[in-house]
Amino acid sequence: MTTNHTWLRPTRPGQQPRLEYGADYNPEQWPRETWDEDIRAMRTAGVTVVSLAIFSWARLEPVEGTYDFGWLDEIMDLLHAGGISVDLATATASPPPWLTTKHPEILPVDREGRTIWPGGRQQWRPTSPIFREHALRLVRVMAERYGNHPALTAWHVSNELGCHNVYDFSDDAAAAFRVWLQQRYSDLGALNAAWGTSFWSQHYSDWAQILPPRLAATHPNPTQQLDFKRFSSEALRVYLRAERDLLHELTPGVPVTTNFMIMGETKAMDYAAWAADVDFVSNDHYRLPGAQDLDELSFSANLTSGVAGGKPWFLMEHSTSAVNWQPINVAKKPGELARDALTHVAHGADAVCYFQWRQSRAGAEKYHSGMMPHAGADSVLFRDVTALGTTLRELAPISGTGRTPSRAAIVFDWDSWWASEQDSHPSDRLRYKQEALDWYTAFLDLGVRADVLPSHADLSGYDLVVAPILHVVPQPLKQRLEAYVDGGGHLVTTYFSGIVDENDHVYLGGYPGALRDLLGIRIEEFEPLLDGDTAPLDNGTTGTLWTDRIDVTGDGVQVLARYKDGGAAITRRTVGTGSAAYVSTRLAADGLAPVLGDLLERAGVTSELPAELRGRVELAVRGEYWFLVNRTAEPVELTGLDGEFLHGSADRLEPRSVTVLRKA
Amino acid sequence: MTTNHTWLRPTRPGQQPRLEYGADYNPEQWPRETWDEDIRAMRTAGVTVVSLAIFSWARLEPVEGTYDFGWLDEIMDLLHAGGISVDLATATASPPPWLTTKHPEILPVDREGRTIWPGGRQQWRPTSPIFREHALRLVRVMAERYGNHPALTAWHVSNELGCHNVYDFSDDAAAAFRVWLQQRYSDLGALNAAWGTSFWSQHYSDWAQILPPRLAATHPNPTQQLDFKRFSSEALRVYLRAERDLLHELTPGVPVTTNFMIMGETKAMDYAAWAADVDFVSNDHYRLPGAQDLDELSFSANLTSGVAGGKPWFLMEHSTSAVNWQPINVAKKPGELARDALTHVAHGADAVCYFQWRQSRAGAEKYHSGMMPHAGADSVLFRDVTALGTTLRELAPISGTGRTPSRAAIVFDWDSWWASEQDSHPSDRLRYKQEALDWYTAFLDLGVRADVLPSHADLSGYDLVVAPILHVVPQPLKQRLEAYVDGGGHLVTTYFSGIVDENDHVYLGGYPGALRDLLGIRIEEFEPLLDGDTAPLDNGTTGTLWTDRIDVTGDGVQVLARYKDGGAAITRRTVGTGSAAYVSTRLAADGLAPVLGDLLERAGVTSELPAELRGRVELAVRGEYWFLVNRTAEPVELTGLDGEFLHGSADRLEPRSVTVLRKA
Amino acid sequence: MTTNHTWLRPTRPGQQPRLEYGADYNPEQWPRETWDEDIRAMRTAGVTVVSLAIFSWARLEPVEGTYDFGWLDEIMDLLHAGGISVDLATATASPPPWLTTKHPEILPVDREGRTIWPGGRQQWRPTSPIFREHALRLVRVMAERYGNHPALTAWHVSNELGCHNVYDFSDDAAAAFRVWLQQRYSDLGALNAAWGTSFWSQHYSDWAQILPPRLAATHPNPTQQLDFKRFSSEALRVYLRAERDLLHELTPGVPVTTNFMIMGETKAMDYAAWAADVDFVSNDHYRLPGAQDLDELSFSANLTSGVAGGKPWFLMEHSTSAVNWQPINVAKKPGELARDALTHVAHGADAVCYFQWRQSRAGAEKYHSGMMPHAGADSVLFRDVTALGTTLRELAPISGTGRTPSRAAIVFDWDSWWASEQDSHPSDRLRYKQEALDWYTAFLDLGVRADVLPSHADLSGYDLVVAPILHVVPQPLKQRLEAYVDGGGHLVTTYFSGIVDENDHVYLGGYPGALRDLLGIRIEEFEPLLDGDTAPLDNGTTGTLWTDRIDVTGDGVQVLARYKDGGAAITRRTVGTGSAAYVSTRLAADGLAPVLGDLLERAGVTSELPAELRGRVELAVRGEYWFLVNRTAEPVELTGLDGEFLHGSADRLEPRSVTVLRKA
Repeated sequence: MTTNHTWLRPTRPGQQPRLEYGADYNPEQWPRETWDEDIRAMRTAGVTVVSLAIFSWARLEPVEGTYDFGWLDEIMDLLHAGGISVDLATATASPPPWLTTKHPEILPVDREGRTIWPGGRQQWRPTSPIFREHALRLVRVMAERYGNHPALTAWHVSNELGCHNVYDFSDDAAAAFRVWLQQRYSDLGALNAAWGTSFWSQHYSDWAQILPPRLAATHPNPTQQLDFKRFSSEALRVYLRAERDLLHELTPGVPVTTNFMIMGETKAMDYAAWAADVDFVSNDHYRLPGAQDLDELSFSANLTSGVAGGKPWFLMEHSTSAVNWQPINVAKKPGELARDALTHVAHGADAVCYFQWRQSRAGAEKYHSGMMPHAGADSVLFRDVTALGTTLRELAPISGTGRTPSRAAIVFDWDSWWASEQDSHPSDRLRYKQEALDWYTAFLDLGVRADVLPSHADLSGYDLVVAPILHVVPQPLKQRLEAYVDGGGHLVTTYFSGIVDENDHVYLGGYPGALRDLLGIRIEEFEPLLDGDTAPLDNGTTGTLWTDRIDVTGDGVQVLARYKDGGAAITRRTVGTGSAAYVSTRLAADGLAPVLGDLLERAGVTSELPAELRGRVELAVRGEYWFLVNRTAEPVELTGLDGEFLHGSADRLEPRSVTVLRKA
Repeated sequence: MTTNHTWLRPTRPGQQPRLEYGADYNPEQWPRETWDEDIRAMRTAGVTVVSLAIFSWARLEPVEGTYDFGWLDEIMDLLHAGGISVDLATATASPPPWLTTKHPEILPVDREGRTIWPGGRQQWRPTSPIFREHALRLVRVMAERYGNHPALTAWHVSNELGCHNVYDFSDDAAAAFRVWLQQRYSDLGALNAAWGTSFWSQHYSDWAQILPPRLAATHPNPTQQLDFKRFSSEALRVYLRAERDLLHELTPGVPVTTNFMIMGETKAMDYAAWAADVDFVSNDHYRLPGAQDLDELSFSANLTSGVAGGKPWFLMEHSTSAVNWQPINVAKKPGELARDALTHVAHGADAVCYFQWRQSRAGAEKYHSGMMPHAGADSVLFRDVTALGTTLRELAPISGTGRTPSRAAIVFDWDSWWASEQDSHPSDRLRYKQEALDWYTAFLDLGVRADVLPSHADLSGYDLVVAPILHVVPQPLKQRLEAYVDGGGHLVTTYFSGIVDENDHVYLGGYPGALRDLLGIRIEEFEPLLDGDTAPLDNGTTGTLWTDRIDVTGDGVQVLARYKDGGAAITRRTVGTGSAAYVSTRLAADGLAPVLGDLLERAGVTSELPAELRGRVELAVRGEYWFLVNRTAEPVELTGLDGEFLHGSADRLEPRSVTVLRKA
Repeated sequence: MTTNHTWLRPTRPGQQPRLEYGADYNPEQWPRETWDEDIRAMRTAGVTVVSLAIFSWARLEPVEGTYDFGWLDEIMDLLHAGGISVDLATATASPPPWLTTKHPEILPVDREGRTIWPGGRQQWRPTSPIFREHALRLVRVMAERYGNHPALTAWHVSNELGCHNVYDFSDDAAAAFRVWLQQRYSDLGALNAAWGTSFWSQHYSDWAQILPPRLAATHPNPTQQLDFKRFSSEALRVYLRAERDLLHELTPGVPVTTNFMIMGETKAMDYAAWAADVDFVSNDHYRLPGAQDLDELSFSANLTSGVAGGKPWFLMEHSTSAVNWQPINVAKKPGELARDALTHVAHGADAVCYFQWRQSRAGAEKYHSGMMPHAGADSVLFRDVTALGTTLRELAPISGTGRTPSRAAIVFDWDSWWASEQDSHPSDRLRYKQEALDWYTAFLDLGVRADVLPSHADLSGYDLVVAPILHVVPQPLKQRLEAYVDGGGHLVTTYFSGIVDENDHVYLGGYPGALRDLLGIRIEEFEPLLDGDTAPLDNGTTGTLWTDRIDVTGDGVQVLARYKDGGAAITRRTVGTGSAAYVSTRLAADGLAPVLGDLLERAGVTSELPAELRGRVELAVRGEYWFLVNRTAEPVELTGLDGEFLHGSADRLEPRSVTVLRKA
C-alpha cells in the first residue's frame, strides 16, 4: 500500500505563498453585531482562513428539506470582503435532532448494546444508509450553493471522523462488516482459516452468522477483533470518499480534506491509509500534560508529515491555551502558544489553525480556549495570538517546502498498534505508542533527527530505521525489511516484534517468528515482568515490562548487552554493510538513549547539531530553514549556528521558544 | 424564591412541649408476640413517637385492590395505648411486586438505558402516571382509615424521596421533561437560546425532539444537563405535593412531612425549594467516617435549620451505631450515640429519631443498628438509648425554640453545586460541598458560629457571609449581593464564582463575571492545578486545585495574600462600610482558618466563646440555651461560662460529649 | 448432605495401574500432516490420555443435523493405534454459530440486562430448553458413535461448566428459578418468610412475581441473592446430570466426569455438592502470581481431594508454563513444571493433564503454553515435559491410593463463602477464601498437615478442625459441631462465624449466634476496622479488618490473647476433653502461625516432619508414600527421613522441586 498523495494547496488564484492562520469559526453562536467585530479582530490578528459550518446542519436544515442559508451567505460574503478564505465544512458532522427523532435507527450501538443518544455530537452510525442519504443530500446542496463562492478555498468533510463513533456494533455495522469480509476473504473457508474458527466452536457455515465482536462471555476471537478494527477504520474511509467524490464531481478543483487526529492515544483510524483519500492532509492536535508532552507534539507533527509523504500539511486544530475535555485543563504558560504552533510548522505545517476563533459562552466546549477569549481582545492571550500572526507572516517564505528527510526513521504501524495491544497477550501493560514515543525521545535526547514514517513508506533512503514492537509482519513486510538490511540498512526492532502474520497467526518454530532469521536469534518463551519487577542489564540500564530468553542462532550476531543472569538482552547481527538489532525489554527513553547512541554510531549516523545543543534543542529542517525548539526549562545559548535568523534570537533560545534560521 | 415555611408541630392536642424520641418501627417484620415487648421497651427508653408502615404497601395491599389493615390497626391501637404517637407513612415508598409485574413500565430506566428492576426499593419512575394512580389510591385509603386515629400525629409521605430514583431517563421522564421545559421557556426559541443549541448541531425544531441527557457519544449539552437536574428535583416535588394535597384535603390539620436527606454528597434534591412543600421539615442524617465527620454532621444539621427558616425541625432518621450501606460500617464509640443526637438538637432538632426501633434479622439492612440491637435489651447500646431518653426529657424546655441567628453565615446554593461539578470544566476535581464544609470547619476552628443558609435566604442580618464557589449568579442574585455589600455587609467568595448565569452561559469580559465589579478584580484565564501541584501563598498557606491570575481593576482593593510569583491570591475590596473578598485557590480548612480569622476581624465579628474553648468546642445557641460540643479527643475544662447546666458537667466536657447550659 | 462418590477409574480393561499423563488435544486446529507428528511426540513424552472434541460442536455439526465425523473417527483410530486413551468430550461446551443465529434466545443475559453474544465461548443459558434439546441430541449422537470405540476411556461432559455463564438473568433463568424455589419452599408463605419480604415492600402474592436479582436501585434482598447463587449452581448440576444420565444409559460402564475449577476465586459452583454427580472427580487448576501462589495450589489440590472423599482424582487441566488470561502471564521458572504437577499428585491426583497438547497458533488462547510450544519439540519446555513423563511412570505404584487423612482439618463451606461476602455487611473487605488460605499457610508454616474438607464431611476422625468465617450455621451443622466438641474434638473458628441460619437470618441474642453457647462468649456489636487501622494483640500479633468486643459468658473459657485495651481477642473454652476457640480478628498467615501452634499443642497435634524441615517443606502422604515439596527459594537438606526415595534426591531438596519417599 502506497499513499498516492497529491498535494492540492488550498490556495486561491493569485494568492501569494503564505502560512495560513485561522480557526474554526462559529458565527451562528453569536449575535449578528459580533460578526463585524470578529472580522476586524481577525484582521488585527492576521487571520487568513477560517473553517465554517462544521456543526451547522441543524441551523442550515432546521426541518427536513427546508434550508436556511441566509446567515451563511452573509458571513461568507463578509469574510471574503475582509480578505479571509473559507475552509467550508460539509456540515455533516452531527445530524440534527429532527433526523435522529425520525430515524433513531441511525444512532450508534456500543459493544454492550447500549444506544448512543443525541445530546453530544457524532451520534451516527458510519454504515447507516439512511444517514448517508441525508448527509450526501446536504453535501450536494452545499456544493451547489458555495462551490463558486470566491471565499471558498477548500472543503472540510465532516469533522474529526470517528472521534466518538468509529466503533459501532449495530445491525447496520454487522451487515457492512459481512460485506467487507466477503471482499477481503471471498470465500467462507478462507475466513474460517484466517480467524482460526476451529477454536472454541466458532466455525461459520454461513456469512449471515458473522457478527461484530459484541459483549461476549470472554475474550472474543482475536482475528475477528482485529478485522473489526480494520473494517471500522475502512468504513469511515468509505464514507469520507463518498463525500469527497460528490464534492470532486460538483466542484472540481476545490481541494478536499478532513481533519485527522494524529495525537496521543487516538488509534482507531489508520491515517496512513486515509491520507490517500484527501487532497491535502490536515490534522488536529492537543497536548496532554506529562513529562513527554512536547515530544509527543513533535512526534505527532512528524508522523503527520510522514503520512503526508513529507509534503506540507495543514494544522486544522490546536488550542491557544486550555482545553475542556481533560480531567484537569491547564492553561498554557507564556510562550507555549507560539512554541507549540511553530513546532508544528517546523514539521511541515503550512497552516496554523485553532479550535476556535471566539471562545463559546455556552455549550460543552465553553471552557475550551479560543483565539478571542472570554476576556475579550484586551487580554494577554489575544495579544499573543496577534504576535503569532506577525511571526507567521515573517515565515511565509517557508510555505510550500516539505520537510528535509533525516538519516534515521521510526516506523509506525497501525496494524501492529492494534494487534499488539489486544487482549489475551503475555502482558496487557504493553503500550505500542509509548514505546515508539520513547524511541523518539531518545533520538531527541541525542540531537538526531528521525522521521516518523508509516510502515508502507520507502525506507531505502534511511541509514537506520527503528521499528518498535513491529508485531504484525506479513510476508511482504518481512521481505521489505530483509531487503532493507541487505541493502546496507540498519534495522532496530524490539520485544514482541515479528510474532504474527496479517491474520494474527503466530509464526512457529520460535520467536521472533518472521524476523528470526534476519535477527539471528531464537526465543522459546516470552518472559514478561510483573509490575514492580525489573531486569537490570550489564550496560547500566534497567528493563521493565518484558524480557526474552534469547538464543543466538545466526552468524554475525553480537550481544550488545546482557541481563544480570548472563542472558542476551540486546543483540545486533551484521549483514554485509547493514545490520539487524533487537532490544528485548522496555528501557524507556532514559535507557534507550545510550543504546540508540551506540547503534547510531555503529551505523555512522551523527547529529547535525553542535554538541552543546544536543538534547537541549530539537532540530527540524524544511529545506534551507532550520527550526530550533528549546526542550528544557532553561535558556540555551546558541553557538555554532550559521545563517540568517528569521525568528527568535541569534544568541539565546529562551525556554518555551523557537528560533528559525535560514542556513548559510 | 422564599420558603413560606409554616411550622406545624406534629403535636397532639394537650401534649406538653417535649423533644420527641423514637424511630421507624416495622412490626410486620416480627411475630405478634414481639409487639408487646416492643412497646414495653419503648416506654423504658422514653420513646414518644414512631414512624409506621414506611415500606408496608405490599403487606397492606397484597393483591391489587385487596387490603389487609388488621395488623396495622392493631399496632396503632397498641401504640396509642402505650402513649406513643405515630408518624404514619403513606406506605408508597416502594411498589409491591404485583404492581411492577403488572406494569413493568413504571420501572425506572437509567442513563445507559438499563431497566432498574425490583429487588431493592424505590423502583418507580417519579413521573409515571400509572405509579401515581396506584400510589394516590393507597394514600386515599390510608387517610380515610387512619385520619382520625388518636395515635396519628403526622403524615410521612413516601420515604427519602429520590434516594435512588431521582434520575430517570425513561420515556415517561422524557415526556414530563418536555412539559416542564415548555413551562420554563414557553417557546422553543427561548429554549434553543438558553441551551446554546447552535453548538454541535443541536437546534430543536420541535418540542418532541427533546430528550433527557441519555448516554451520549461525548459530553451532553451542559444546560440540558443542568435543566434535567432541576427538572428531576422538581418532578419529585410535584409528586410530593400530589400526596400532600390529598392528605390535606382528607385530613386537614394533620401536618405532612417527608424525610429529607441533607447529608454528605446527597445533592440531587434541592431541599431549599422542597422546604416550602412540607408542614414541618424533617431530615435523615448518617455520618461517614473521616476527619471532618463531626463537622459534617453539624453542617448538615445547621443547613437543615437553614432550609427550615431557622425554626425547629424533626430528625427523622439517624443511627444508634453502625449502618450497613458503607463499604466498612464502623460502630459508634462510647458517647457518640448521645453526642450525635444532641448535636442535632443543638441545631434545632425537636425530635431525635432513628432508623430503626428493632434491628432487623433479615433483609438488606439487618446489619444496620437499631434502638433495640440483635443482642437485645441486655446490652450497652440499649442502656445508652434509655439514657438518652432521660436526657431528652430533661431538655424538654428547649423544644419549640428555633436557633438564634449568628453574625456570620455560609451560603449554600444547589444550582451552584449542580453546575460547578458538571463535566467539561477547568477541573473535574472541584467539590462544592467540600469547599463549603472546609469554610464551616474554619469557623468552628475559630469558635465563631455561622449559620448555613440556602441562597434565597435574607442575608441582611449577617455581618459576614461566605459564599464559596457561588458559580451560578443570575442577575437577581448579583443585585442582592451588591445590595448586601452596599448595606455594609462583608461578602467572601472564592474561585469559580460568578462565572455563569442561570442558563450556564459565561459572563463575558473577564472572570469572575457577575461579581467582577463588586470584587474589583478581573481574571483572564483560570489556572487549575494538576494533582500534586501546589501554590504556596505568602501568608504561609498553600493552595491546591485551582489558582487565578488576578488583575486588580477596582478602587479600594487590597491584596491580602500573594502567590510566590507575586500575583494576587486573596483580595478584599472595601465598599463603604462593607467589603467583598475573593479567595482564588483551595486552602482547605487548615489554610482557611487564618484567612477567615483575618476577614472576621476586619468585619468586627468575634467569638462568643471564652478564648480557651475556641476551636475545641462547638457552640450552638437556641434562645437562652447554649450547647457545647467537644470537638476534640481530649477532655476540655469549662471556664468562663455562666448559667445553669441542664445536661453535662459544669466543669469538664468529656470527649464525645455535649453540655447544655441555660445562660445567665 | 454426603457425597456418595464412586470412584470409577477411567481405565480400560487390562490396563496396568499408572498415573495418566496428557492434555486437551485439538487436532482440528492443525493440518492433517501434523497429526502423525503429534502422536509420535506424545509417545516420546509419555502421554497416555488426551481429551478430544471439547470445542468441536461447530466442526462436528457444521449445519443443523448434518454431521462431519470423519476427522474425529480418524484421530480416534490414530490415537488408539498409538496406545493413547481418549477422554472424549460431549462437544457441547460452546454452541455453534448456526445455533445462536437461529436461536438468539439461548444467549445469556447479564445482571444489567446485556446480552452475552457469541465471539468467545459458553454463550448459552444453563436453563435454556432449546440449548438443552440441541446439546443432548449431540450427546446422543456422540455416545452412539463412539461408545464402543477402543480408545474411549471416559466421557468429558461439556467443559468448565459455569466458567462464564453460571449467572444468567434471562427470562429462562427467571422461570427456572421459580421452579427451583417452588421445590425448595413448597408454599409462597415459606418463601416470604425465608426472604424476609416484609422488608422494603417485597411481599410476593404470586410465584410469577419472583425474579432473579437483576440490576436494582440498591442492594437486592440478600436471601434472594443467596438463593440465586444456590439455584445457579444447581441449574448447572441439573444440566450436568442430564448429559450424564444419557451417557450412562447409552454407554453403561464408561465413567463420566466434568472438569471442576477448584482454584483461586472461582466460587459460583458448589463442587462439594457437584462431586456426587460425577463418576470421578476431575479438576482444572492455574496458579495466580503472588506470595501464596504455591500454598494456594496445594490448598486447591487438597480441597479437590476433600470433595472427592479422599479418593484419587484427575488433574484435567493445568499449564506447562504461562497462561493467556491473566493481566501479565509469567512463564514458569525451571523446575516449576514438574513441581506443580507433582504437588497435585501429592494430594491425590492420579492423572496429570494440561491445557493443551499443542500450543495454538491462532485464537484467544494462542499465548497459553502447551506441552508442545510454538518453538516446537526442540525446546527446553518439551524436554521438561518428556522428563515429567518419565517421572510419572516411575511413580505409577502410587496410583489408586487415596490420601492418608491428617489429624487436623480446615472446613470449607460454599454457603458461608457466598453469604459472608454479600453486600450490606459490616465490612466489604472480608474475603472468605483468603482467610481459609491463611490458616492453611499457617499449617504449612508449622509443618502440620491439614485436610481441606467440605463442610458436610465427617469430622469425627480429626483432632483439631478450623472453620474460618463459618458464617452460615443451620441447626444441623450447629449440632454436628457441638457433637464434635463433645466428642473431644478441638474446634477453632473466627470472626463473623455462626451469625446466620440457612436463610441468612441473624441469630438473635448476641453474636456469634449459633456458636455462642459452644464458644462461651457473647458479642453485642461487630467492630470492623477501617483500611489502615490495626488492632495490636498482647501476644505480639496484629489484627486488621475486624474486631469484636467479647464478653466471656460461658464456663471454662480462657482468654488466650487480648487487645491493647484489655478486651478479649482470642478465646478458648474447654468442654470435657475437647475445646472451642474463637479468633476475633484477621491475623493473616504470619499472625495465625503462633496462634495455631498454641492451639495445636493444646490439642496434642504435632508435626510428622523432623523439626528442621517444618515450614520449609510441605508434606503430603498417600499411603506409604511421602511427598516433600520445597516451599522456599533455597535448597533444603533432608535429614531424619527413612525409606526408599522414588523421585528426587535423598539428601537435598532443591528449590522448586519435590521428593517422593516410600516410608520404611
